[in-house]
Amino acid sequence: MLLGQAITLVESRRAEHQALAQGIVEACMPHTGRSLRIGVTGSPGVGKSSFIEMLGIRLTNEFGHKLAVLAIDPSSRVTRGSILGDKTRMEKLAIDPHAFIRPSPAGTSLGGVAARTRETMLLCEAAGFDIVFIETVGVGQSEVAVHGMVDLFLLLLLPGAGDELQGIKRGIVEMADLVAINKADGDRVELAKVAKREYSRALHLFPPKASGWTPKVVTCSSITGDGMEEVWSLIEKYRLLTTANSWLEMNRKAQSKNWFYEVLEHGLRQMFFQKENVRKQLEVYEKQVVGGQISVLRAAQDILKLINGE
Amino acid sequence: MLLGQAITLVESRRAEHQALAQGIVEACMPHTGRSLRIGVTGSPGVGKSSFIEMLGIRLTNEFGHKLAVLAIDPSSRVTRGSILGDKTRMEKLAIDPHAFIRPSPAGTSLGGVAARTRETMLLCEAAGFDIVFIETVGVGQSEVAVHGMVDLFLLLLLPGAGDELQGIKRGIVEMADLVAINKADGDRVELAKVAKREYSRALHLFPPKASGWTPKVVTCSSITGDGMEEVWSLIEKYRLLTTANSWLEMNRKAQSKNWFYEVLEHGLRQMFFQKENVRKQLEVYEKQVVGGQISVLRAAQDILKLINGE
Repeated sequence: MLLGQAITLVESRRAEHQALAQGIVEACMPHTGRSLRIGVTGSPGVGKSSFIEMLGIRLTNEFGHKLAVLAIDPSSRVTRGSILGDKTRMEKLAIDPHAFIRPSPAGTSLGGVAARTRETMLLCEAAGFDIVFIETVGVGQSEVAVHGMVDLFLLLLLPGAGDELQGIKRGIVEMADLVAINKADGDRVELAKVAKREYSRALHLFPPKASGWTPKVVTCSSITGDGMEEVWSLIEKYRLLTTANSWLEMNRKAQSKNWFYEVLEHGLRQMFFQKENVRKQLEVYEKQVVGGQISVLRAAQDILKLINGE
Repeated sequence: MLLGQAITLVESRRAEHQALAQGIVEACMPHTGRSLRIGVTGSPGVGKSSFIEMLGIRLTNEFGHKLAVLAIDPSSRVTRGSILGDKTRMEKLAIDPHAFIRPSPAGTSLGGVAARTRETMLLCEAAGFDIVFIETVGVGQSEVAVHGMVDLFLLLLLPGAGDELQGIKRGIVEMADLVAINKADGDRVELAKVAKREYSRALHLFPPKASGWTPKVVTCSSITGDGMEEVWSLIEKYRLLTTANSWLEMNRKAQSKNWFYEVLEHGLRQMFFQKENVRKQLEVYEKQVVGGQISVLRAAQDILKLINGE
């Protein structure tokens, strides 16, 4: 499959692959941007994969959508595993010809993974996928990265426990456009309703969103399928509203701009700290700074002169 | 007073003042590092100023210490006010010849304020002050900045309300070496005891600190003076422990190193984005990136070539 090969190039760290990948992404640019980009986050065990599978199968079968599922998984640095590494977690989607599942590359920095996921998303769009899910595990930094590349941010939570608000960081809840209390089946239906009320209250306390959208809370089950219809109809409503008021477009422009400056600053640091004379001087100055023999501002000033080759 | 004039130079933005200030800081370097640096944070209204005054007066009168009180106040950007702007908040310390109070400079960025506060701290140490308090208001970023420049981090909290754990961010509580429940007087004594128990439990849940110190919770009152003795004796114990196990020294070295790289990266960005050809090219590329006509990685690569004057 061509898409898979292109993504492999994007994920590669070899210089000749990178150059090739860049050419491909460049050529794809005019065909990107036509999907709805949905971020899905939640703690491990909340059932992100089965949620995406249950919702995804409906989207491909009943609505005729073409669905791509990507992942950002910073934990893979440690475990060398991956959220979606085990494709069998999405058995039905894995064999659905209208769905494309891509595990996150392991062993790279969050910035690197995020950059690659963005480009992979663009490739998927050019390949004709009109819904892109980006899945991430709820550990903070990766949510911010995902939030910076999607149109809609969906937070999955478990019913019960009562202390949910403390489990997930406040900032993550604040970013959510849609909160879905998952596993609302069997004994947990009542607990899920309680959680729904609690979160509805909690969301009210946040300031209104720039998108003009009021975040919603729903209950659902990836086993029975209950609530999935409501989830999708809310996503559709969100898309209609933010398309009509142009927020979707403005947000994407702002995201591109932010990303551009992130990449620029990252590249700037890399280039500077890899210069040989900078590295040599740094060794000397770092020792003097740590030993208190020179002031930090003075040391920094001296090193920065090297940027102009002085 | 010479110290005051030197600090004014450090705070100045005029290039000739900056050069002069750097020379002074440079000359002071060998005489710095001999104070205990204490960060004090807490929400507005928790009584940071009266706490520092009540503790400070004891330190100068009974223990013969020389005390400097500085502030980092990011909110001053908006209000042009300052935590310590109103010196009368510390009436007694303000006229104490062994104390030096310096409001934070208003109207600059957090990075700028933090940099100046660091240098001001060094000047105070060179001038013979052996205890430095750095006060900040509890809004997140400034705490991290203060935590990066002090030996001990003290968090002030109010008794009662019950939901204290939600008011202050978890990360701030986790940074604390000492939590003082302030205003433990009159009707609030019992509430303060409850809060003390709650926070002692909460602190237990955090991983052990690299310093080898177990964070402590105390109750105190800036009005009656109750608990101030305990606060100071714990600070002394902390200093003894972290001096004996060399953590204090190692931490300062790590802080200097981190600060060095922060200043370097900040300076690097400034130099790059101020280059005239970079600014011109950025305007063009930013439009193309936002319009989706060029890929972000390609645009960044083109701009970065300008660092070498290509």
